[in-house]
Amino acid sequence: MRYLIRFSYDGTNFFGYQKQVNKRTVQGELENVLSRISKTKVLVSASGRTDALVHAINQYAHFDLNIHISCNDLKRALNSLLPKDIYIKSVSNVLDSFHARFDVLKKEYIYKINLGEFDPFSRNYIYQYNQELDIVKMVQAIEYFKGKHNFKSFTKSNNDIVDYEREIYDATIRVENHIMTISFIGNGFLRYMVRNMVGTLISVGEGKTEPDEILEIFKCEDRTKAKKTAPANGLYLKNVYYALN
Amino acid sequence: MRYLIRFSYDGTNFFGYQKQVNKRTVQGELENVLSRISKTKVLVSASGRTDALVHAINQYAHFDLNIHISCNDLKRALNSLLPKDIYIKSVSNVLDSFHARFDVLKKEYIYKINLGEFDPFSRNYIYQYNQELDIVKMVQAIEYFKGKHNFKSFTKSNNDIVDYEREIYDATIRVENHIMTISFIGNGFLRYMVRNMVGTLISVGEGKTEPDEILEIFKCEDRTKAKKTAPANGLYLKNVYYALN
Repeated sequence: MRYLIRFSYDGTNFFGYQKQVNKRTVQGELENVLSRISKTKVLVSASGRTDALVHAINQYAHFDLNIHISCNDLKRALNSLLPKDIYIKSVSNVLDSFHARFDVLKKEYIYKINLGEFDPFSRNYIYQYNQELDIVKMVQAIEYFKGKHNFKSFTKSNNDIVDYEREIYDATIRVENHIMTISFIGNGFLRYMVRNMVGTLISVGEGKTEPDEILEIFKCEDRTKAKKTAPANGLYLKNVYYALN
Repeated sequence: MRYLIRFSYDGTNFFGYQKQVNKRTVQGELENVLSRISKTKVLVSASGRTDALVHAINQYAHFDLNIHISCNDLKRALNSLLPKDIYIKSVSNVLDSFHARFDVLKKEYIYKINLGEFDPFSRNYIYQYNQELDIVKMVQAIEYFKGKHNFKSFTKSNNDIVDYEREIYDATIRVENHIMTISFIGNGFLRYMVRNMVGTLISVGEGKTEPDEILEIFKCEDRTKAKKTAPANGLYLKNVYYALN
Protein backbone atom coordinates (compact mmCIF):
# COMPACT_ATOMS: atom_id res chain seq x y z
CA MET A 1 0.00 0.00 0.00
CA ARG A 2 1.20 3.50 -0.85
CA TYR A 3 0.78 6.14 1.86
CA LEU A 4 0.96 9.92 1.61
CA ILE A 5 1.87 11.88 4.76
CA ARG A 6 1.56 15.60 5.44
CA PHE A 7 3.92 16.74 8.17
CA SER A 8 5.64 19.70 9.79
CA TYR A 9 9.11 20.00 11.23
CA ASP A 10 11.22 22.46 13.15
CA GLY A 11 14.43 22.48 11.08
CA THR A 12 16.62 23.91 13.87
CA ASN A 13 18.24 20.64 14.92
CA PHE A 14 18.36 18.91 11.51
CA PHE A 15 21.03 18.86 8.83
CA GLY A 16 18.21 19.40 6.37
CA TYR A 17 15.54 17.08 5.02
CA GLN A 18 17.65 14.71 2.93
CA LYS A 19 19.29 11.63 4.41
CA GLN A 20 23.05 11.87 5.05
CA VAL A 21 25.39 9.40 6.69
CA ASN A 22 25.89 10.07 10.42
CA LYS A 23 23.81 13.26 10.37
CA ARG A 24 20.41 13.90 11.90
CA THR A 25 17.97 14.50 9.02
CA VAL A 26 14.18 14.51 8.68
CA GLN A 27 14.21 11.76 6.04
CA GLY A 28 16.55 9.68 8.20
CA GLU A 29 14.21 9.93 11.23
CA LEU A 30 11.13 9.08 9.13
CA GLU A 31 12.75 6.05 7.45
CA ASN A 32 14.13 4.83 10.76
CA VAL A 33 10.72 4.90 12.46
CA LEU A 34 8.84 3.48 9.44
CA SER A 35 11.36 0.63 9.21
CA ARG A 36 10.76 -0.14 12.89
CA ILE A 37 6.98 -0.15 12.34
CA SER A 38 7.04 -2.35 9.22
CA LYS A 39 10.15 -4.38 10.16
CA THR A 40 11.58 -3.90 6.65
CA LYS A 41 13.58 -1.10 5.06
CA VAL A 42 11.28 1.75 3.93
CA LEU A 43 12.25 4.51 1.48
CA VAL A 44 10.50 7.86 1.84
CA SER A 45 10.07 10.25 -1.13
CA ALA A 46 9.25 13.85 -0.24
CA SER A 47 8.00 16.69 -2.45
CA GLY A 48 11.58 17.99 -2.36
CA ARG A 49 14.40 18.58 0.06
CA THR A 50 14.81 21.52 2.41
CA ASP A 51 18.21 22.76 3.58
CA ALA A 52 19.64 22.69 7.09
CA LEU A 53 17.71 24.93 9.56
CA VAL A 54 14.82 25.42 7.10
CA HIS A 55 11.38 24.61 8.52
CA ALA A 56 8.26 22.99 7.06
CA ILE A 57 4.68 23.78 7.98
CA ASN A 58 3.25 21.35 5.43
CA GLN A 59 5.70 19.00 3.76
CA TYR A 60 4.47 15.90 1.89
CA ALA A 61 6.06 12.50 1.29
CA HIS A 62 4.99 9.06 0.05
CA PHE A 63 6.22 5.54 0.85
CA ASP A 64 5.09 1.94 0.47
CA LEU A 65 4.41 -0.43 3.36
CA ASN A 66 4.02 -4.19 3.09
CA ILE A 67 1.94 -4.40 6.27
CA HIS A 68 -1.74 -3.60 6.79
CA ILE A 69 -2.19 -0.59 9.04
CA SER A 70 -4.97 1.98 8.98
CA CYS A 71 -4.12 5.61 8.29
CA ASN A 72 -5.23 6.61 11.80
CA ASP A 73 -3.14 3.93 13.49
CA LEU A 74 -0.14 4.80 11.36
CA LYS A 75 -0.46 8.50 12.26
CA ARG A 76 -0.61 7.62 15.96
CA ALA A 77 2.32 5.18 15.75
CA LEU A 78 4.50 7.66 13.83
CA ASN A 79 3.80 10.53 16.23
CA SER A 80 4.52 8.39 19.27
CA LEU A 81 7.85 7.13 17.86
CA LEU A 82 9.14 10.22 16.06
CA PRO A 83 11.13 12.92 17.86
CA LYS A 84 9.07 15.94 18.93
CA ASP A 85 10.47 18.25 16.24
CA ILE A 86 8.61 16.31 13.54
CA TYR A 87 4.82 16.04 13.62
CA ILE A 88 2.64 13.98 11.26
CA LYS A 89 -0.51 16.00 10.54
CA SER A 90 -2.29 13.50 8.30
CA VAL A 91 -1.89 10.11 6.64
CA SER A 92 -3.84 8.97 3.58
CA ASN A 93 -3.72 6.16 1.04
CA VAL A 94 -2.90 7.07 -2.55
CA LEU A 95 -2.67 5.18 -5.84
CA ASP A 96 0.58 3.36 -6.55
CA SER A 97 1.09 5.76 -9.44
CA PHE A 98 1.19 8.81 -7.16
CA HIS A 99 4.60 10.36 -6.58
CA ALA A 100 5.17 13.09 -3.97
CA ARG A 101 7.87 14.81 -6.05
CA PHE A 102 6.86 14.27 -9.67
CA ASP A 103 3.19 15.11 -9.11
CA VAL A 104 3.76 18.53 -7.49
CA LEU A 105 1.65 21.21 -9.18
CA LYS A 106 2.92 24.15 -7.13
CA LYS A 107 4.58 24.99 -3.86
CA GLU A 108 4.44 27.89 -1.43
CA TYR A 109 7.44 29.08 0.55
CA ILE A 110 7.29 31.86 3.15
CA TYR A 111 10.13 33.85 4.67
CA LYS A 112 9.79 35.68 8.02
CA ILE A 113 11.77 38.77 9.03
CA ASN A 114 11.56 40.49 12.43
CA LEU A 115 11.70 44.27 11.97
CA GLY A 116 11.15 44.93 15.69
CA GLU A 117 13.35 44.36 18.72
CA PHE A 118 15.36 41.15 19.00
CA ASP A 119 13.30 38.30 20.45
CA PRO A 120 15.26 35.36 21.92
CA PHE A 121 12.21 33.09 21.58
CA SER A 122 12.09 33.45 17.79
CA ARG A 123 15.84 33.44 17.11
CA ASN A 124 15.56 30.08 15.29
CA TYR A 125 12.28 30.88 13.55
CA ILE A 126 12.46 34.43 12.25
CA TYR A 127 15.37 36.27 10.64
CA GLN A 128 16.16 39.06 13.10
CA TYR A 129 16.81 42.06 10.90
CA ASN A 130 15.84 44.72 13.48
CA GLN A 131 16.22 47.63 11.09
CA GLU A 132 14.03 49.82 8.93
CA LEU A 133 13.29 48.51 5.44
CA ASP A 134 11.62 50.51 2.67
CA ILE A 135 8.58 48.29 2.35
CA VAL A 136 7.03 50.26 -0.52
CA LYS A 137 10.12 49.62 -2.67
CA MET A 138 10.17 45.96 -1.68
CA VAL A 139 6.53 45.59 -2.76
CA GLN A 140 7.43 47.21 -6.11
CA ALA A 141 10.46 44.93 -6.46
CA ILE A 142 8.70 41.64 -5.73
CA GLU A 143 6.51 42.19 -8.83
CA TYR A 144 9.60 41.57 -11.00
CA PHE A 145 9.84 37.99 -9.73
CA LYS A 146 6.33 37.06 -10.91
CA GLY A 147 5.96 35.09 -14.13
CA LYS A 148 8.32 32.83 -16.07
CA HIS A 149 12.04 33.56 -15.75
CA ASN A 150 15.42 31.91 -16.06
CA PHE A 151 16.45 31.84 -12.37
CA LYS A 152 20.13 30.96 -12.93
CA SER A 153 21.22 34.17 -11.15
CA PHE A 154 19.17 33.16 -8.09
CA THR A 155 20.40 29.63 -7.50
CA LYS A 156 23.57 27.89 -6.36
CA SER A 157 26.36 28.35 -8.90
CA ASN A 158 27.93 25.22 -10.41
CA ASN A 159 24.63 23.45 -10.39
CA ASP A 160 24.23 20.47 -12.71
CA ILE A 161 20.73 21.64 -13.58
CA VAL A 162 19.86 21.98 -17.26
CA ASP A 163 16.62 23.92 -17.07
CA TYR A 164 16.65 27.07 -14.95
CA GLU A 165 13.19 28.24 -15.98
CA ARG A 166 10.60 28.43 -13.24
CA GLU A 167 7.28 30.25 -12.98
CA ILE A 168 6.23 32.31 -9.96
CA TYR A 169 2.43 32.47 -9.84
CA ASP A 170 2.16 34.80 -6.90
CA ALA A 171 4.49 36.73 -4.60
CA THR A 172 3.37 38.93 -1.70
CA ILE A 173 4.73 40.88 1.25
CA ARG A 174 2.78 41.62 4.38
CA VAL A 175 3.81 43.14 7.70
CA GLU A 176 2.02 42.50 10.98
CA ASN A 177 3.31 43.32 14.50
CA HIS A 178 6.81 44.08 13.17
CA ILE A 179 7.00 40.68 11.43
CA MET A 180 7.39 40.79 7.64
CA THR A 181 6.20 37.67 5.82
CA ILE A 182 7.25 37.23 2.19
CA SER A 183 5.39 34.52 0.27
CA PHE A 184 6.22 32.92 -3.09
CA ILE A 185 3.97 30.45 -4.89
CA GLY A 186 5.49 28.77 -7.95
CA ASN A 187 5.71 25.61 -10.01
CA GLY A 188 9.13 24.82 -8.58
CA PHE A 189 12.08 26.36 -6.76
CA LEU A 190 15.82 25.92 -7.39
CA ARG A 191 18.28 25.51 -4.54
CA TYR A 192 18.65 28.75 -2.48
CA MET A 193 16.23 30.45 -4.89
CA VAL A 194 13.83 31.77 -2.24
CA ARG A 195 16.65 32.88 0.06
CA ASN A 196 18.40 34.64 -2.85
CA MET A 197 15.19 36.41 -3.91
CA VAL A 198 14.64 37.48 -0.28
CA GLY A 199 18.27 38.67 0.02
CA THR A 200 17.76 40.78 -3.10
CA LEU A 201 14.48 42.18 -1.72
CA ILE A 202 16.27 43.11 1.52
CA SER A 203 18.94 44.90 -0.53
CA VAL A 204 16.10 46.84 -2.21
CA GLY A 205 14.59 47.61 1.21
CA GLU A 206 17.98 48.94 2.35
CA GLY A 207 18.12 51.26 -0.68
CA LYS A 208 21.18 49.50 -2.12
CA THR A 209 19.35 48.06 -5.12
CA GLU A 210 16.60 49.60 -7.25
CA PRO A 211 13.53 47.44 -7.94
CA ASP A 212 14.08 47.38 -11.72
CA GLU A 213 17.67 46.15 -11.31
CA ILE A 214 16.09 42.73 -10.80
CA LEU A 215 15.51 42.65 -14.58
CA GLU A 216 19.27 43.12 -15.11
CA ILE A 217 20.09 40.38 -12.62
CA PHE A 218 17.79 37.96 -14.48
CA LYS A 219 19.49 38.85 -17.79
CA CYS A 220 23.04 38.19 -16.53
CA GLU A 221 22.26 34.56 -15.63
CA ASP A 222 25.08 34.85 -13.10
CA ARG A 223 24.74 34.06 -9.37
CA THR A 224 27.29 36.72 -8.40
CA LYS A 225 24.89 39.43 -9.64
CA ALA A 226 22.11 38.63 -7.15
CA LYS A 227 22.44 39.87 -3.59
CA LYS A 228 23.22 38.07 -0.31
CA THR A 229 21.49 34.78 0.49
CA ALA A 230 19.07 35.38 3.39
CA PRO A 231 19.69 33.10 6.42
CA ALA A 232 18.01 29.67 6.47
CA ASN A 233 16.18 30.04 9.80
CA GLY A 234 13.50 32.42 8.41
CA LEU A 235 12.43 30.04 5.61
CA TYR A 236 9.41 27.72 5.70
CA LEU A 237 7.97 25.30 3.17
CA LYS A 238 4.38 26.40 3.71
CA ASN A 239 2.44 24.16 1.34
CA VAL A 240 2.61 21.77 -1.59
CA TYR A 241 -0.26 21.45 -4.04
CA TYR A 242 -1.17 18.25 -5.91
CA ALA A 243 -4.00 17.58 -8.35
CA LEU A 244 -5.64 15.45 -5.64
CA ASN A 245 -5.83 18.28 -3.05
CA MET B 1 27.81 52.25 40.09
CA ARG B 2 24.79 49.97 40.54
CA TYR B 3 23.00 48.88 37.37
CA LEU B 4 19.55 47.34 36.95
CA ILE B 5 18.89 45.22 33.86
CA ARG B 6 15.61 43.98 32.43
CA PHE B 7 16.06 40.91 30.26
CA SER B 8 14.36 37.93 28.62
CA TYR B 9 15.61 34.41 28.12
CA ASP B 10 14.56 31.22 26.43
CA GLY B 11 15.03 28.67 29.22
CA THR B 12 15.18 25.64 26.90
CA ASN B 13 18.95 25.20 26.95
CA PHE B 14 19.67 26.37 30.52
CA PHE B 15 19.84 24.44 33.79
CA GLY B 16 17.78 27.25 35.28
CA TYR B 17 18.66 30.81 36.27
CA GLN B 18 20.92 30.15 39.24
CA LYS B 19 24.66 29.54 38.85
CA GLN B 20 25.82 25.94 39.20
CA VAL B 21 29.27 24.45 38.72
CA ASN B 22 29.82 23.06 35.20
CA LYS B 23 26.25 23.76 34.12
CA ARG B 24 24.97 26.32 31.64
CA THR B 25 22.86 28.82 33.61
CA VAL B 26 21.54 32.32 32.92
CA GLN B 27 23.34 33.82 35.93
CA GLY B 28 26.55 32.08 34.89
CA GLU B 29 26.38 33.57 31.37
CA LEU B 30 25.61 37.06 32.70
CA GLU B 31 28.43 37.04 35.28
CA ASN B 32 30.86 35.63 32.75
CA VAL B 33 30.16 38.40 30.22
CA LEU B 34 30.04 41.19 32.85
CA SER B 35 33.37 40.01 34.26
CA ARG B 36 34.87 40.17 30.76
CA ILE B 37 33.53 43.71 30.28
CA SER B 38 34.69 45.05 33.66
CA LYS B 39 37.80 42.84 33.99
CA THR B 40 36.86 41.97 37.59
CA LYS B 41 34.53 39.39 39.10
CA VAL B 42 30.90 40.62 39.04
CA LEU B 43 28.04 39.15 41.07
CA VAL B 44 24.54 39.41 39.65
CA SER B 45 21.44 39.44 41.90
CA ALA B 46 18.15 38.67 40.17
CA SER B 47 14.58 39.14 41.40
CA GLY B 48 14.59 35.39 42.02
CA ARG B 49 15.59 32.17 40.36
CA THR B 50 13.69 30.26 37.69
CA ASP B 51 13.98 26.48 37.27
CA ALA B 52 15.45 24.57 34.33
CA LEU B 53 13.45 25.03 31.08
CA VAL B 54 11.42 27.93 32.55
CA HIS B 55 11.42 31.11 30.45
CA ALA B 56 11.50 34.82 31.31
CA ILE B 57 9.88 37.60 29.33
CA ASN B 58 10.92 40.29 31.82
CA GLN B 59 13.40 39.23 34.48
CA TYR B 60 15.33 41.86 36.51
CA ALA B 61 18.76 41.81 38.13
CA HIS B 62 21.20 44.29 39.65
CA PHE B 63 25.01 44.34 39.88
CA ASP B 64 27.81 46.81 40.62
CA LEU B 65 30.51 47.78 38.14
CA ASN B 66 33.73 49.58 39.00
CA ILE B 67 34.11 50.97 35.46
CA HIS B 68 32.35 53.94 33.85
CA ILE B 69 30.08 52.82 31.05
CA SER B 70 26.82 54.39 29.88
CA CYS B 71 23.61 52.37 30.09
CA ASN B 72 23.29 52.36 26.28
CA ASP B 73 26.86 51.19 25.74
CA LEU B 74 26.46 48.50 28.38
CA LYS B 75 23.25 47.26 26.75
CA ARG B 76 24.99 47.05 23.38
CA ALA B 77 28.08 45.33 24.82
CA LEU B 78 26.02 42.78 26.74
CA ASN B 79 23.84 41.89 23.75
CA SER B 80 26.82 41.51 21.46
CA LEU B 81 28.67 39.21 23.92
CA LEU B 82 25.78 37.20 25.39
CA PRO B 83 24.45 34.04 23.70
CA LYS B 84 21.33 34.57 21.58
CA ASP B 85 18.97 32.92 24.07
CA ILE B 86 19.41 35.84 26.49
CA TYR B 87 18.45 39.36 25.46
CA ILE B 88 18.98 42.54 27.50
CA LYS B 89 15.96 44.78 26.97
CA SER B 90 17.05 47.74 29.08
CA VAL B 91 19.81 48.96 31.39
CA SER B 92 19.40 51.71 33.98
CA ASN B 93 21.30 53.11 36.94
CA VAL B 94 19.78 52.68 40.39
CA LEU B 95 20.68 53.77 43.92
CA ASP B 96 23.19 51.61 45.79
CA SER B 97 20.39 50.79 48.22
CA PHE B 98 18.27 49.13 45.52
CA HIS B 99 18.11 45.35 45.59
CA ALA B 100 16.52 43.32 42.76
CA ARG B 101 15.27 40.60 45.12
CA PHE B 102 14.46 42.38 48.38
CA ASP B 103 12.67 45.31 46.72
CA VAL B 104 10.19 43.22 44.70
CA LEU B 105 6.61 44.41 45.25
CA LYS B 106 4.91 41.79 43.10
CA LYS B 107 5.55 39.37 40.29
CA GLU B 108 3.53 37.97 37.42
CA TYR B 109 3.95 34.44 36.11
CA ILE B 110 2.07 33.07 33.10
CA TYR B 111 1.59 29.47 32.04
CA LYS B 112 0.71 28.48 28.45
CA ILE B 113 -1.18 25.34 27.44
CA ASN B 114 -1.90 24.27 23.86
CA LEU B 115 -5.41 22.81 23.63
CA GLY B 116 -5.18 22.40 19.85
CA GLU B 117 -3.16 20.05 17.68
CA PHE B 118 0.49 19.37 18.56
CA ASP B 119 2.80 22.04 17.14
CA PRO B 120 6.49 21.10 16.83
CA PHE B 121 7.48 24.79 16.76
CA SER B 122 6.11 25.46 20.23
CA ARG B 123 7.13 22.18 21.89
CA ASN B 124 9.61 24.03 24.15
CA TYR B 125 7.37 27.04 24.77
CA ILE B 126 3.84 25.77 25.39
CA TYR B 127 2.69 22.72 27.34
CA GLN B 128 1.08 20.51 24.71
CA TYR B 129 -2.02 19.19 26.41
CA ASN B 130 -4.05 18.58 23.23
CA GLN B 131 -7.21 17.58 25.03
CA GLU B 132 -10.48 19.13 26.08
CA LEU B 133 -10.48 20.93 29.43
CA ASP B 134 -13.58 22.20 31.24
CA ILE B 135 -12.65 25.86 31.14
CA VAL B 136 -15.71 27.04 33.08
CA LYS B 137 -14.70 24.87 36.05
CA MET B 138 -11.09 26.02 35.82
CA VAL B 139 -12.23 29.65 35.92
CA GLN B 140 -14.29 28.84 39.04
CA ALA B 141 -11.33 27.01 40.60
CA ILE B 142 -8.72 29.72 40.05
CA GLU B 143 -10.77 32.05 42.30
CA TYR B 144 -9.79 29.87 45.29
CA PHE B 145 -6.12 30.77 44.82
CA LYS B 146 -6.73 34.51 45.18
CA GLY B 147 -5.94 36.17 48.50
CA LYS B 148 -3.61 35.23 51.36
CA HIS B 149 -2.99 31.52 51.91
CA ASN B 150 -0.50 29.12 53.40
CA PHE B 151 0.89 27.54 50.21
CA LYS B 152 2.73 24.63 51.86
CA SER B 153 0.65 22.11 49.88
CA PHE B 154 1.72 23.81 46.64
CA THR B 155 5.48 23.92 47.06
CA LYS B 156 8.39 21.47 47.16
CA SER B 157 8.19 19.23 50.21
CA ASN B 158 11.14 19.22 52.64
CA ASN B 159 11.68 22.87 52.07
CA ASP B 160 13.63 24.79 54.71
CA ILE B 161 11.21 27.69 54.38
CA VAL B 162 9.63 29.03 57.58
CA ASP B 163 6.86 31.21 56.18
CA TYR B 164 4.61 29.62 53.58
CA GLU B 165 2.15 32.51 53.43
CA ARG B 166 1.88 34.31 50.13
CA GLU B 167 -0.78 36.58 48.66
CA ILE B 168 -2.18 36.21 45.14
CA TYR B 169 -3.53 39.59 44.00
CA ASP B 170 -4.95 38.43 40.70
CA ALA B 171 -5.33 35.18 38.78
CA THR B 172 -6.91 34.85 35.35
CA ILE B 173 -7.45 32.35 32.54
CA ARG B 174 -7.91 33.28 28.92
CA VAL B 175 -8.08 31.18 25.76
CA GLU B 176 -7.18 32.45 22.32
CA ASN B 177 -6.58 30.33 19.20
CA HIS B 178 -6.48 27.10 21.21
CA ILE B 179 -3.83 28.52 23.55
CA MET B 180 -4.81 28.83 27.21
CA THR B 181 -2.84 31.41 29.21
CA ILE B 182 -3.08 31.26 33.00
CA SER B 183 -1.73 34.32 34.83
CA PHE B 184 -0.90 34.77 38.52
CA ILE B 185 0.13 38.07 40.10
CA GLY B 186 1.32 37.86 43.69
CA ASN B 187 3.72 39.22 46.30
CA GLY B 188 5.92 36.15 45.99
CA PHE B 189 5.96 32.57 44.78
CA LEU B 190 7.40 29.47 46.43
CA ARG B 191 9.32 26.84 44.47
CA TYR B 192 7.05 24.93 42.01
CA MET B 193 4.07 26.93 43.34
CA VAL B 194 2.82 28.12 39.94
CA ARG B 195 3.35 24.73 38.32
CA ASN B 196 1.52 23.01 41.20
CA MET B 197 -1.40 25.45 41.03
CA VAL B 198 -1.57 24.89 37.24
CA GLY B 199 -1.40 21.10 37.70
CA THR B 200 -4.32 21.32 40.13
CA LEU B 201 -6.28 23.52 37.70
CA ILE B 202 -5.69 20.95 34.93
CA SER B 203 -7.00 18.23 37.24
CA VAL B 204 -10.13 20.38 37.72
CA GLY B 205 -10.39 20.84 33.92
CA GLU B 206 -10.20 17.05 33.51
CA GLY B 207 -13.08 16.62 35.98
CA LYS B 208 -10.87 14.75 38.47
CA THR B 209 -10.96 17.49 41.12
CA GLU B 210 -13.81 19.79 42.11
CA PRO B 211 -13.02 23.52 42.36
CA ASP B 212 -13.81 23.73 46.08
CA GLU B 213 -11.41 20.86 46.87
CA ILE B 214 -8.69 23.50 46.60
CA LEU B 215 -9.82 24.72 50.05
CA GLU B 216 -9.17 21.23 51.47
CA ILE B 217 -5.74 21.07 49.82
CA PHE B 218 -4.79 24.39 51.43
CA LYS B 219 -5.92 23.11 54.85
CA CYS B 220 -3.84 19.91 54.72
CA GLU B 221 -0.55 21.82 54.33
CA ASP B 222 0.77 18.68 52.64
CA ARG B 223 2.37 18.62 49.17
CA THR B 224 1.04 15.14 48.42
CA LYS B 225 -2.53 16.52 48.46
CA ALA B 226 -2.06 18.90 45.53
CA LYS B 227 -2.12 17.50 42.02
CA LYS B 228 0.66 16.88 39.47
CA THR B 229 3.30 19.54 38.84
CA ALA B 230 2.74 21.00 35.35
CA PRO B 231 5.83 20.76 33.06
CA ALA B 232 8.41 23.56 33.21
CA ASN B 233 8.37 24.47 29.50
CA GLY B 234 4.98 26.27 29.66
CA LEU B 235 6.05 28.64 32.46
CA TYR B 236 7.21 32.24 32.02
CA LEU B 237 8.27 34.91 34.48
CA LYS B 238 6.25 37.66 32.81
CA ASN B 239 7.02 40.69 34.95
CA VAL B 240 8.46 41.97 38.22
CA TYR B 241 7.16 45.14 39.85
CA TYR B 242 9.28 47.49 41.96
CA ALA B 243 8.34 50.73 43.63
CA LEU B 244 10.46 52.54 41.05
CA ASN B 245 8.51 51.17 38.05
